[in-house]
Amino acid sequence: MADLPQDTLARLRKSSSATVATMLFKHGFSNVAMRGVKALKRVSGVMAGEAFTVRNIPAREDFDVLKAFDGHERLQAKAFDSCPAGQVFVADCRGETYAAFGGGIFLSRLAARGAAGMVSDGAVRDSAEIAGLDLPVFCAGVSPPPSLVLQHAAEFGVPIGCGGVAVYPGDIILGDGDGVVVIPRALADKIADAALEQEHYDRFALEQIRAGKPVFGTYPPDGATQARYQTCLKKSR
Amino acid sequence: MADLPQDTLARLRKSSSATVATMLFKHGFSNVAMRGVKALKRVSGVMAGEAFTVRNIPAREDFDVLKAFDGHERLQAKAFDSCPAGQVFVADCRGETYAAFGGGIFLSRLAARGAAGMVSDGAVRDSAEIAGLDLPVFCAGVSPPPSLVLQHAAEFGVPIGCGGVAVYPGDIILGDGDGVVVIPRALADKIADAALEQEHYDRFALEQIRAGKPVFGTYPPDGATQARYQTCLKKSR
Amino acid sequence: MADLPQDTLARLRKSSSATVATMLFKHGFSNVAMRGVKALKRVSGVMAGEAFTVRNIPAREDFDVLKAFDGHERLQAKAFDSCPAGQVFVADCRGETYAAFGGGIFLSRLAARGAAGMVSDGAVRDSAEIAGLDLPVFCAGVSPPPSLVLQHAAEFGVPIGCGGVAVYPGDIILGDGDGVVVIPRALADKIADAALEQEHYDRFALEQIRAGKPVFGTYPPDGATQARYQTCLKKSR
Amino acid sequence: MADLPQDTLARLRKSSSATVATMLFKHGFSNVAMRGVKALKRVSGVMAGEAFTVRNIPAREDFDVLKAFDGHERLQAKAFDSCPAGQVFVADCRGETYAAFGGGIFLSRLAARGAAGMVSDGAVRDSAEIAGLDLPVFCAGVSPPPSLVLQHAAEFGVPIGCGGVAVYPGDIILGDGDGVVVIPRALADKIADAALEQEHYDRFALEQIRAGKPVFGTYPPDGATQARYQTCLKKSR
Amino acid sequence: MADLPQDTLARLRKSSSATVATMLFKHGFSNVAMRGVKALKRVSGVMAGEAFTVRNIPAREDFDVLKAFDGHERLQAKAFDSCPAGQVFVADCRGETYAAFGGGIFLSRLAARGAAGMVSDGAVRDSAEIAGLDLPVFCAGVSPPPSLVLQHAAEFGVPIGCGGVAVYPGDIILGDGDGVVVIPRALADKIADAALEQEHYDRFALEQIRAGKPVFGTYPPDGATQARYQTCLKKSR
Amino acid sequence: MADLPQDTLARLRKSSSATVATMLFKHGFSNVAMRGVKALKRVSGVMAGEAFTVRNIPAREDFDVLKAFDGHERLQAKAFDSCPAGQVFVADCRGETYAAFGGGIFLSRLAARGAAGMVSDGAVRDSAEIAGLDLPVFCAGVSPPPSLVLQHAAEFGVPIGCGGVAVYPGDIILGDGDGVVVIPRALADKIADAALEQEHYDRFALEQIRAGKPVFGTYPPDGATQARYQTCLKKSR
Repeated sequence: MADLPQDTLARLRKSSSATVATMLFKHGFSNVAMRGVKALKRVSGVMAGEAFTVRNIPAREDFDVLKAFDGHERLQAKAFDSCPAGQVFVADCRGETYAAFGGGIFLSRLAARGAAGMVSDGAVRDSAEIAGLDLPVFCAGVSPPPSLVLQHAAEFGVPIGCGGVAVYPGDIILGDGDGVVVIPRALADKIADAALEQEHYDRFALEQIRAGKPVFGTYPPDGATQARYQTCLKKSR
Repeated sequence: MADLPQDTLARLRKSSSATVATMLFKHGFSNVAMRGVKALKRVSGVMAGEAFTVRNIPAREDFDVLKAFDGHERLQAKAFDSCPAGQVFVADCRGETYAAFGGGIFLSRLAARGAAGMVSDGAVRDSAEIAGLDLPVFCAGVSPPPSLVLQHAAEFGVPIGCGGVAVYPGDIILGDGDGVVVIPRALADKIADAALEQEHYDRFALEQIRAGKPVFGTYPPDGATQARYQTCLKKSR
Repeated sequence: MADLPQDTLARLRKSSSATVATMLFKHGFSNVAMRGVKALKRVSGVMAGEAFTVRNIPAREDFDVLKAFDGHERLQAKAFDSCPAGQVFVADCRGETYAAFGGGIFLSRLAARGAAGMVSDGAVRDSAEIAGLDLPVFCAGVSPPPSLVLQHAAEFGVPIGCGGVAVYPGDIILGDGDGVVVIPRALADKIADAALEQEHYDRFALEQIRAGKPVFGTYPPDGATQARYQTCLKKSR
Repeated sequence: MADLPQDTLARLRKSSSATVATMLFKHGFSNVAMRGVKALKRVSGVMAGEAFTVRNIPAREDFDVLKAFDGHERLQAKAFDSCPAGQVFVADCRGETYAAFGGGIFLSRLAARGAAGMVSDGAVRDSAEIAGLDLPVFCAGVSPPPSLVLQHAAEFGVPIGCGGVAVYPGDIILGDGDGVVVIPRALADKIADAALEQEHYDRFALEQIRAGKPVFGTYPPDGATQARYQTCLKKSR
Repeated sequence: MADLPQDTLARLRKSSSATVATMLFKHGFSNVAMRGVKALKRVSGVMAGEAFTVRNIPAREDFDVLKAFDGHERLQAKAFDSCPAGQVFVADCRGETYAAFGGGIFLSRLAARGAAGMVSDGAVRDSAEIAGLDLPVFCAGVSPPPSLVLQHAAEFGVPIGCGGVAVYPGDIILGDGDGVVVIPRALADKIADAALEQEHYDRFALEQIRAGKPVFGTYPPDGATQARYQTCLKKSR
Repeated sequence: MADLPQDTLARLRKSSSATVATMLFKHGFSNVAMRGVKALKRVSGVMAGEAFTVRNIPAREDFDVLKAFDGHERLQAKAFDSCPAGQVFVADCRGETYAAFGGGIFLSRLAARGAAGMVSDGAVRDSAEIAGLDLPVFCAGVSPPPSLVLQHAAEFGVPIGCGGVAVYPGDIILGDGDGVVVIPRALADKIADAALEQEHYDRFALEQIRAGKPVFGTYPPDGATQARYQTCLKKSR
């Protein structure tokens, strides 16, 4: 896995999921946002981190019984115990939300390990408790039943799908109030640069719009607007 | 398009989507509320305005590329630049929510033009920023990707469907915490009167219910309740 | 119907829907949480009460007209007027949310009668007004149209389905921020005991996790953890 | 329940679900066709009969176990054993199709009793075997698991919903290759007459269309076409 | 609208929707197949023709009543009466299938006009009758109710969406047993050539596979297979 | 992986998916039938074989391009080239049906290798061609686009989910006209015995039902019926 420049994540956190999605589109990626995956509580700031992936298959009555909790084979616990600090725990729950894949105790474990966040296209539980953690949680719902009813953790650290998007271990996961996008690792640095530049222009454009300028000619800029922006850029340096 | 009596909108804003929907049912209309379209942030008061419609078709790889932003044909920008003050911008997104049809810049443009609100059966983005605008927004979700991925604005000012309901330009769009209803323009004044009258009775009924009266006989009123209400009406004059 | 020990409900209110769902799974019940049914407003505490059931079928143009409101046959009103104090009004709306089954007046009636809450796999309306009531409301959405458009109350006090779960009159309905679970009446007392015991262990486990212990060995406890917990239990007595 | 004129069903069988749905629309009924309910095998002719209704709720682990088959309470068996000859067995399965509500043995019982058909918004099984029976079957799918997994028969002979349409015992159920429609009993005779008349005009219209006439002016007829039709009618008498 | 080379359609009919979709993917188009739209009866051969488009919005109780059939404004009839010979009638029904947009009479009119086919993401009715016409029909279902219940024809000859794909008037619509794909008009000739070439290779590849060759190296061909294919091509000339 | 008794598959082929699902329910398994997965063409007989599994994740624009077909990494081809004779190729497509995972060439390869069948919760293409193969195909639909648009084969020979059911390599996959069920390998022999026994009783029960006996007492048998069956069994030996 290629190294990630040191401040890529920091720069990405200054952007937003919307701007990053547009930059990815410019690079030929249109399927980048997880469907149905939203912030559990109002988000402040932007979550960004490398993906630590977990793959679930449907639970089955022979393996997924309460005594399974006791066994050495219990991969779900190992996954939560293994997520490195600074990474985002991403669980492929096949979009199924009847049962929770993680609640107060599992997500507290992620917080204790210093995970950057938790993302799932399934549900979580103990939502009131989770909201109190210093851990951004993005999921497809909340639901009381335990994971054993629905989910069987089969592997971790492998490529998965989550919310209809491919996630390879080490991809960058970025989430905010609009949702969660996946940035292919190899592109993350380029996207970070492009996104920051775009954010800068967007602030200029917003001022123009507030001042009564039309969208047409401003977003994207026509020649005249582009010239004004360049002037403005020079002044601000 | 027939003129709308001057205070119709003002009177409608004193009612609610629930009461208006009931009055429309009394006039034979049962398909009036947009499915899946909800207020983006907690609503205070009631949004009402004439519909300014925009119709989207699915995006396509030959037309909906980033350089499309530059062309003279870019109908999406023109639509946002054309919505008259006091009107509600209504976008037919065919219920698709993977990409946003409008974010911070486009919706700021609507706010700058004095639009009465924005309604879509698609998604929006930059939701945190939008929440700060003085513009009621009703939509089917939030999502980071840009409109080009999914939506191609094909026309504006034409009859559309939105959330499963027909919207003709000039119809009255009314939204509050329960959702969005469409009032056929020709009926708007009658509905405004009937709704106000119903709201008045509802306040009376609510007092009766709080005082321990049963629903049966109170809502709707039987003869005795009707008489008490009439007495009460006379007193309050 | 078997008597319910006096403090069963009180003990259940000290637990949560998540813990109760796990205890039900231990007793062989996996289909216990209503799909798509969530708290209308942020919930404080846990709602618990015996189920008072109402069954709806699709509305039809010959029976479900506004004048139906006047008739003696109007079962919807009777149902709201009949819910006993302390019980949870549970409405089977077949998961249909286009119209509301209950709004400000009907739910105020439940509050006036001292109902423990309202649960429906359909929608409600007047949501702003309802949020002000001292009545927990769990539903599948909000929508302006009146019930007549969609729902016809056919019976009350009979077994129903709600959110994909069977509800027999007298079953215990428990709801909180994660959703709503149904406890078969015959099991309620056992579940209350088991849930309280589990909550106690969960608090211990959470402390361990916060202190850096792994999930594996803690949840559920291995021998060593179990021993520490027993010691801890003795001290706290 | 009002008597049905002797030949109403026979006349209805000469029409079609499409024509009957149009006639019901003329009488103010628009929600008449079951959603998702289709003929299991290619249908020849039109099924029509009075509705014998069965209502299911979700199965539950305490009641719906294999030994439940042995008990005296087994309402599913009683329902199949009770359907009168000439009637249509209509099962409300809440649109759930994971398990079958009836297979080779249960449906053979209906055939043996001379039932006019079987309609369900759930699934059936043993589809190859069922296809060999002299019994029209309309359902929402086929699926191997037994009903106990999903369905609990709670009542029969009561008003139900099926495929989103209300069915009252004694309503007329009519099915053909386009699907299944419900005719309110009180209207059945009028609808039968109107449908036959319409079928007659439709045959005339079809000839006109085949001869190159436009739809406009033919369907429905303008004055000239109407006159030609009347002439044609007189000739044929 | 650019002219279409004379035999483009004929060449396309020698290919298949699968091969055409692959060639479109090679040209950068991935959203080309209508979702949920399938042949009404077993298809023999391949339907291909230029698109004649019709756009529907949701029906409304003031406009879409039976007497609407009589008016001069009835756009649905005009649309069916206007489809040119050799073209494919494509109806945007917003994916709604409760009512039919066309039955025996309307589709017979298309057949009488020599239309190349009918495609809709809605339903049709009189399916048994339609199956007898010499007109390929692709739709999302069958359902008895008349269009007035659900659909209001708003325009024809405009860009639409159908089954989630953009259709511009004059685009090429191609359908067979796998479904329906849309070929942008400007690309049709290139795609026709590429598809024929691919079909040729596919026949060769199929022989190789039947003879026991692995997929890997055969499809697509590696150098050795490519060489064998070229030899084979020369021989066959 | 434990050995499978030699004739287990042969015995299972004499039963049906319906009977096997009931036997699995008796052993505590209720989630055994794949949702939405049906036979592509009318099935004669019963398909049974050990599962050879393939897991897909969503396609991505960097990896899943046409030149990917050329690379050594192309796992999809290797999977089709690796399925052992007599086994059932089972593809986890996450229930997505927009593109096909396999068409004429890939499925011909399976046929050439002597695979027992192909099962997928995604789509296939070239359906007319596939119908001519001596290979039972069970899928969730047909669709023209190539797999690259939607699916990326990530692994084979691992536990997967398919149609909402867990499939472990070596599990027994059984399919017929009602759908597809998964039998945990460890139970296959027991289930084969129990299913045959049940089929035997079912034939007896069917005769009883045809002769006019009620379901109640016959299915399942009460004491008297059981006695008659035992007598009948003795005679037939």
